[in-house]
Amino acid sequence: MAEREVRIYEVGPRDGLQNEQRAVPTEAKLHFIALLGDAGLREIEATSFVSPKAVPQLADADELMRGLERRPGVRYPVLVPNERGMSRALEAGAEAICLFTAASEPFVQHNIGMSIAESMTAFAPVMARVREGGLWSRAYVSTAFGCPYQGEVSEAAVVGVAEELMQLGVDEVSIGDTIGVAGPADVRRVVGALLHAGIPPQRLAMHFHDTRGTALANVTAALELGIRAFDASSGGTGGCPYAPGAAGNLATEDLVYLLEREGLAHGVALEGVLAAARFISEAIGRPLATKVGQAGGWTA
Amino acid sequence: MAEREVRIYEVGPRDGLQNEQRAVPTEAKLHFIALLGDAGLREIEATSFVSPKAVPQLADADELMRGLERRPGVRYPVLVPNERGMSRALEAGAEAICLFTAASEPFVQHNIGMSIAESMTAFAPVMARVREGGLWSRAYVSTAFGCPYQGEVSEAAVVGVAEELMQLGVDEVSIGDTIGVAGPADVRRVVGALLHAGIPPQRLAMHFHDTRGTALANVTAALELGIRAFDASSGGTGGCPYAPGAAGNLATEDLVYLLEREGLAHGVALEGVLAAARFISEAIGRPLATKVGQAGGWTA
Repeated sequence: MAEREVRIYEVGPRDGLQNEQRAVPTEAKLHFIALLGDAGLREIEATSFVSPKAVPQLADADELMRGLERRPGVRYPVLVPNERGMSRALEAGAEAICLFTAASEPFVQHNIGMSIAESMTAFAPVMARVREGGLWSRAYVSTAFGCPYQGEVSEAAVVGVAEELMQLGVDEVSIGDTIGVAGPADVRRVVGALLHAGIPPQRLAMHFHDTRGTALANVTAALELGIRAFDASSGGTGGCPYAPGAAGNLATEDLVYLLEREGLAHGVALEGVLAAARFISEAIGRPLATKVGQAGGWTA
Repeated sequence: MAEREVRIYEVGPRDGLQNEQRAVPTEAKLHFIALLGDAGLREIEATSFVSPKAVPQLADADELMRGLERRPGVRYPVLVPNERGMSRALEAGAEAICLFTAASEPFVQHNIGMSIAESMTAFAPVMARVREGGLWSRAYVSTAFGCPYQGEVSEAAVVGVAEELMQLGVDEVSIGDTIGVAGPADVRRVVGALLHAGIPPQRLAMHFHDTRGTALANVTAALELGIRAFDASSGGTGGCPYAPGAAGNLATEDLVYLLEREGLAHGVALEGVLAAARFISEAIGRPLATKVGQAGGWTA
């Protein structure tokens, strides 16, 4: 990937919808994913094979994967929490796998009932099957910039977890500002430490939440450090479970506008993203509140 | 001012309210200004002495200035369009004056019915009275990053207007992204050109609108270029007359959160700004929709 090309990794169907109150019918999810493909998105995280009890919004993962129209050149990763989820994902024909852990102990404990070390142990057999099947894989390092239980998180903790994941052989690590507290100086501190530890920028993605409006400022700081992959959610779905009413994931439409204006290539059509964003906003039953969703793009 | 100190110039009572549909009673404006002072803001643009016909929302400028409780160490600039406005401002006891022009001809024509050159000619006698009275002055260069009538605006046009204003003797020039279209690369291009032309960074302020969510990314880029003064509006009032429902001025609360997180000094209390933001949102009759207004701040 050239220096002027950016990968936009769409997390709306999984990370976005899993944090929305209203469950969306499978048919609507499939249409959303089709619209995202129409918009030119080439990496669309489709669903999660976690327990339906834990995440009822994604209880239809098997059905969704059966109904998924796979387009050439598009990757549809799915989240798997453990070996059982991995078996379900493989049966459903998944070719790209996401793992989930975090940089703060209390967050991992609270979310998946394990320590960080235990999460790594649980990943080993999953990664064995990833290798066996020649699948693509990424891992989320959540709460890399702040934790709702612990507070500040050190860059050393982030580096430690990211290095372990690299050793497990994941293709990419996605560094998450799960509660949307980071500013550009934090990005320089954390990404700087990751690069300093020898992790190549091509194997890092940034996952910003726009809870406090800093997501695009953080993207700007990460771009300057050579990062070229960003997670985003069309329609800015996701919310923040710790701040009712607050914004969720960085909106794909806001990211596309910024990249466009920066003259960076990304292969995604803003109007297509807006069509997907409008569709999913209606499906979850609240007005599209993203900045570019409200204002539209701009061409001179 | 030290390198780690940033000036926040509050434009809510003037630029914010002048673009809101609902007019706010004078008493409420005075309370808003008092709350902004309580929050630690030291530059609060109070009103505008333009024609009440053009801007009915600020028709109470004389009354407002009579009722204003002036606090020591706080500057209360007012916008004046011409000599007549200047006379009204001086009678009302104004000690700081703002002028308004733009970097694109059709915008100036449309807004004040003059060419840019004519606006400069009109400023000369106003600036003579500024000098006479030993007043502080700033000038707005609007549409420095894009114009709703003309489209793209060249950095040469911005530099030309800014240099003329400097020659007229204004203390500060505020470079405006009036319709909220700029990205960080635009900021580097335009601010880079201004600095290259020899305008000292201490005499520049940036005035970003958050219409497309890029305001804090633009602040980040400007900070890196040495700019240390930013306009913002508590509650993010102002809207965008060209995109109904879209966001207006960069919200002071979002700016304060970013600066806080960047470790930059600014002297403003986030909770105080949020109190002012909540108050003015109620007064104009719409929910507080800024990011930090919805999510609150964060301390570990």
